[in-house]
Parts: sequence; structure tokens; C-alpha cells
Amino acid sequence: MKTYRILGKNGDSIIQIGAGFDNLSGFPGGTKNFILTDHNIDRLYGRRFPQVAGVITIGTGEAVKTLETVRGIYEKLIALEADRSAFLLGIGGGIVCDIAGFAAATYLRGIRFALVPTTLLAQIDAAIGGKNGVNFHGFKNMVGTFRQPEFVLSDIAFLKTLPGREVRSGLAEMVKHAVIADPAMFSFLEKNWRAALALDPEVMEKLVHDAVVVKADVVNLDETETGERRKLNFGHTLGHAVEKTTGVPHGEAVSIGMIAASRLSVGLGLLPPADLERIEALLIKLELPVRLPSNLEKLLQALKKDKKREGEMIRFVLLKRIGETVIEEIPIEKLQSTIEGLPPSRESLKNRAESRT
Amino acid sequence: MKTYRILGKNGDSIIQIGAGFDNLSGFPGGTKNFILTDHNIDRLYGRRFPQVAGVITIGTGEAVKTLETVRGIYEKLIALEADRSAFLLGIGGGIVCDIAGFAAATYLRGIRFALVPTTLLAQIDAAIGGKNGVNFHGFKNMVGTFRQPEFVLSDIAFLKTLPGREVRSGLAEMVKHAVIADPAMFSFLEKNWRAALALDPEVMEKLVHDAVVVKADVVNLDETETGERRKLNFGHTLGHAVEKTTGVPHGEAVSIGMIAASRLSVGLGLLPPADLERIEALLIKLELPVRLPSNLEKLLQALKKDKKREGEMIRFVLLKRIGETVIEEIPIEKLQSTIEGLPPSRESLKNRAESRT
Repeated sequence: MKTYRILGKNGDSIIQIGAGFDNLSGFPGGTKNFILTDHNIDRLYGRRFPQVAGVITIGTGEAVKTLETVRGIYEKLIALEADRSAFLLGIGGGIVCDIAGFAAATYLRGIRFALVPTTLLAQIDAAIGGKNGVNFHGFKNMVGTFRQPEFVLSDIAFLKTLPGREVRSGLAEMVKHAVIADPAMFSFLEKNWRAALALDPEVMEKLVHDAVVVKADVVNLDETETGERRKLNFGHTLGHAVEKTTGVPHGEAVSIGMIAASRLSVGLGLLPPADLERIEALLIKLELPVRLPSNLEKLLQALKKDKKREGEMIRFVLLKRIGETVIEEIPIEKLQSTIEGLPPSRESLKNRAESRT
Repeated sequence: MKTYRILGKNGDSIIQIGAGFDNLSGFPGGTKNFILTDHNIDRLYGRRFPQVAGVITIGTGEAVKTLETVRGIYEKLIALEADRSAFLLGIGGGIVCDIAGFAAATYLRGIRFALVPTTLLAQIDAAIGGKNGVNFHGFKNMVGTFRQPEFVLSDIAFLKTLPGREVRSGLAEMVKHAVIADPAMFSFLEKNWRAALALDPEVMEKLVHDAVVVKADVVNLDETETGERRKLNFGHTLGHAVEKTTGVPHGEAVSIGMIAASRLSVGLGLLPPADLERIEALLIKLELPVRLPSNLEKLLQALKKDKKREGEMIRFVLLKRIGETVIEEIPIEKLQSTIEGLPPSRESLKNRAESRT
């Protein structure tokens, strides 16, 4: 078991990584504990939940991440007579974590809460950093607050019931954490990618911990995302546009977005081409997509529409080397020519050759 | 113009008391400012609002204080293209202040905001201290957060358009602030009650300032109401029950509640009877009701129902003298006998005699 601490404005958050779900430390005793989870997690793990005054279950999928769902949670908390001494434990993926945080931050102007993230993505991202919220009229995370959970317990054993594609999605975000801030973690991933894909507990405990440290360090510097926290968006600017136009899962879109941002970094003379090759090679080993969509025009249109309020410039997180980012304002017009002007990388040529055989 | 500062966990709040609405200092320049107000204030003062990118108006009355209204505000902010750099200025009574704070605290995980309270009650209570929120299924302030406005501007001139009964309601809360923490302010009220009722600008500026200081000092010690902040509930435990069972306005119910709590304090040997007489005399001069409802039984039933989760004991804010409170757990059973067992006070006998002539 490894632990890490985030210092929030409204109290500290203790992150525990490893085993531990069957012996939740930090969970207060008493009669005012409640669990928020989804039907899927309840079915898989409900029998192992700690004894609480009530379990509230919600559906799965992005469509449940609404104010309506939060209203339903308020209603259940009232029916269960949850008062200001109540403690809410969210057990589930990123959606459960985001909703649990928001419901806890706003019910009776804030009750105590903690999170048990059950997906790799939630363990290294959604559950860390105190962001919570719901979508509104199709806008992602339009309504929410910043509030740190009292603790986060990331039990690696949960990952065994995840579909492989979801594990790889989480690994894409993990690569992102290494690329933006931790070259040693990147090297470890290069050496241990097979063990990571196989969810080897020791390797995963180290990787989840290192990824948490990257995110938590950024959050400690910049809880409400005005400067430093922006580097966590590496690969996400184009990634979101890919997600929107092609519908591929978030992690896969981020993989493509990281390649685009890395190529852009090389094209602007910021990043040595060898670093781009290493990033591309690792993503390919982790069975993540690295090819930009053939219709780059459509992608950039989506990006333009998404960012129209910032005008013609887009703030991009770029790389100087593996482990070091730089933020630059790039004119949208320049994006297409820079990305398309790059010769295909050795790794992607190799990959294409391999996929032909 | 007097100013005062509250030190919130998420930033400081500057309270400005006096004139100043026509020359809002602290309001940022730029094109991303929005106003939230109600139809009534918009009609009376809309022409004097500062130039902003959009004015959002809501209805009046407790019935609008719901999540539905907040949803409507989110929709308008989105339509007005309010982004993270937006600044929301709430101009209105306690309801507008509570809703503006909650909408600003949750839109895009929090945008900047400030308040211009236009009622006496809001100037000394709702706008001060960072509590915000809405009602939910009939439960008051069930959903909300704690977040300090960047500034509060309390312009005494707004009070001139208030109905007299609403002014007196505000004066009841003002007496409460003096009674729980500021004996000099209480003496000032005893000497200047006529000027206060007439809304004399100089007297009111001093009184609003002193009342703000009482509340702000408590908030600075205890932002999220776990200990010290509780003394602000003086007169409110029974006051809420009076409000509920008789439907009298909040301030009048608090006046009655303060008398009940003061009598209880005398009955328990905590408060010298002379202090009770002074409190009663001042409230009578301010044309506030001081007689307990004849049906005490019904009142205590309402209280019991309201507080059922705390069991048979009620935590009461009591007085040791004017300016000093003490919190005691009182068995509900003991309440009725203690309050009824007290002889009617001299002041209330005098009052009864006067009302007979």
C-alpha cells in the first residue's frame, strides 16, 4: 500500500493505492455513512461493501451525469435522514466519482465524502484533484465545484473486472502523466508495458502511484486550474475533437491527441524527433491508436467550433522533451499545415508495414 | 463609506457600507460581467445598473429559490457565452443573494461574483458570510455551498423603497446582532431607535456596519458553522417554529424567539431580569412583536417535529448578559414549563396596559 497527500483549501485528501477495499481505513464509524455507486459495481462488488445506513445506486454511462441524477441523490439522502454529520462514499468509475463529489459538496452546503475509484482512468484522474460536477445541456462538466475528498482508496484489484479496452484507455492517460512530468515513469512503462497490460499488481501499484503523484503535484500547485494545472490537458485539445468527430473512447482519442501534440512540438522545433518516436512506440505497444484521422479538415473544424470563444488562437500544451511541457498559443490556421507537413514517423511506418503483413 | 474584510478559505470578501451603488468600486471592467436581479429591483433600479453583457432577472418570493431557477440561470449564462472569466453581480434581497452565490459557485466549477444586497436583512445577514443555496422539496437551504463574494456593497439608500414592515424585520435581526455580541451597539440602538425607524442615513450606516462586524467576526472564526457561528441562531430556534405555525414574517418571528430565549435564560438563572427588560423594551420601541403565541403547546410540537433527529434535547443559544451568549442543551419537556413558569415581565405588562387604552 502506497499513500500520498493532497493539500486542498478545504482540507487534505489522503490517496491510498494498493489493496485495501475490504479493510477501509479512514472510513468513519457511526450510523451516518452512505454509499453512492452504480448498478454495475453494486452487482460485482456490492456484497463486499462496508456496512452503511444506505446504498444509493445510479445508472451507468455519461447520460446519467446530470443535475437530474443529483436531484435523485438529494431525495434519497433526505429519505435516509442524512444530516450534516453524514459521510458519503462514492464507489465506481469517473462518473460516480464526479457525481458523488458534487452531491456531497452541495447537500446541506457540504457533507464529508471520500472516493473508491474502480477504473484505471478514475484511479489516476477523475478521483484525484477535487474536481467534481455534471454535464448540462450537452456541455461537459458545466456545473460543479472544487472540493477534495477526505480520502481516495485505489484498490488495484478492481481493475481485473474491467474490459481490456477500458484498461488501455486508462494506460493512455498514464502515458500522458509520464510524458508531461516523469521521465523515469516513462522509462519504467517502456520496460514494463507487458506487465501493465496484464495488470500485474506490483507494476500497476507503482504505476498508479506515480501517475497519482504527477496529477496531485500539479493540483497542489494549482488547485483551481489557472496555470500549472493546464499541462494535464496535454493531448486533450485535439483528443476531444477526435472523440467528438469519431466517437472513439476517451483514452484512445487522447492517444491520438498526444501524437498530434508531439508531432506539432517536433514541427515547431521544440521536441527532438527521437522523443516523438519513443512516445509513439510505447503507445503502439500498449495497443493504442496513433494515427491521425485521414480527414484532418473535419477535425480542425470541430476544434475551431469548440474553441470559438478564444478567437483564432488555441492554447496548446506542447513538449520540449519527455517530462517537460511548454504552453504556446498556436493560430488554428497553422495547425493543419504543421501537422500535415511532418513526414510520417519511423514508428508509424513500421506499424503500417506490420499491419499489412 | 465604511469597509470591513472577511477572510474566506477561497479568498477574501470586502464589505462596503454606505452609498456607492452609482460608482461600484471593485467591479471589474471588461466585457464578461453579468447581473442577476429580480423583477422588482430591476423595475426600481434597473436604469442605474452598471453596463454589463447581460442582465438575468428572476421572480420574487421564497418560491423561486429552487434548483429550477438555478437551471434557468445556467441556461442564460450559456446563451450569453459566459466563460470562466465571467463575473456575476447579484443585486437584490436575500433570495437573489443566496441564488447568485450558488449559481456563481457551481457554474463552470465557480466563477467570480459579488453582491449588492438591497434589503436591510440581506445587508446584515444573507449577503454576509458566504452561505448560499436553494430550497429543495420544501426544506430550506437544503442545497448550497460556502463561498465568499469578492465584495458586498450595502448602499443604505436602497432601504428607502422597502415596506416599513420589512425594515422592522431587518431591525429585529439587528437587535439580535447587538444582543449576542455588542453591548455598545445595543445602547446605541436604545438611544437612536427613532432615527433607525426613520432610516436616518448616518445612524443606519453605523448600525449596518456594526451588525456586519458582529456577523463577519463570527464567520471569520468559524466559516462553516461548527461552533462559534451557532450563536447567530439566537432567537431562531423558537423563531422558526413561530414563523412556521403563525406565518408571521421572519424578523417578527425572530423578535418573539429572542424574547422566548431571553425568558428561558432568566428562568435558568443565566440572565439578569433587567437585561430581559431592556431587550423587550427595545423591541417594543422598534414596533416588533414580543408576546409568545397563546398556544405554546402547538409551537413546541412544531419545534419537536422540526428537530426530531437530535432526539429529545434541543441546543439553545441563551444569554448570560447583553453581549454574551452561552449554548446549552435543553430537554424539550423543560422548555414549556420554564417559559410558562415565568411571571410576565414589567415591559410586557406595560405594553398590554398601553394597548388596552
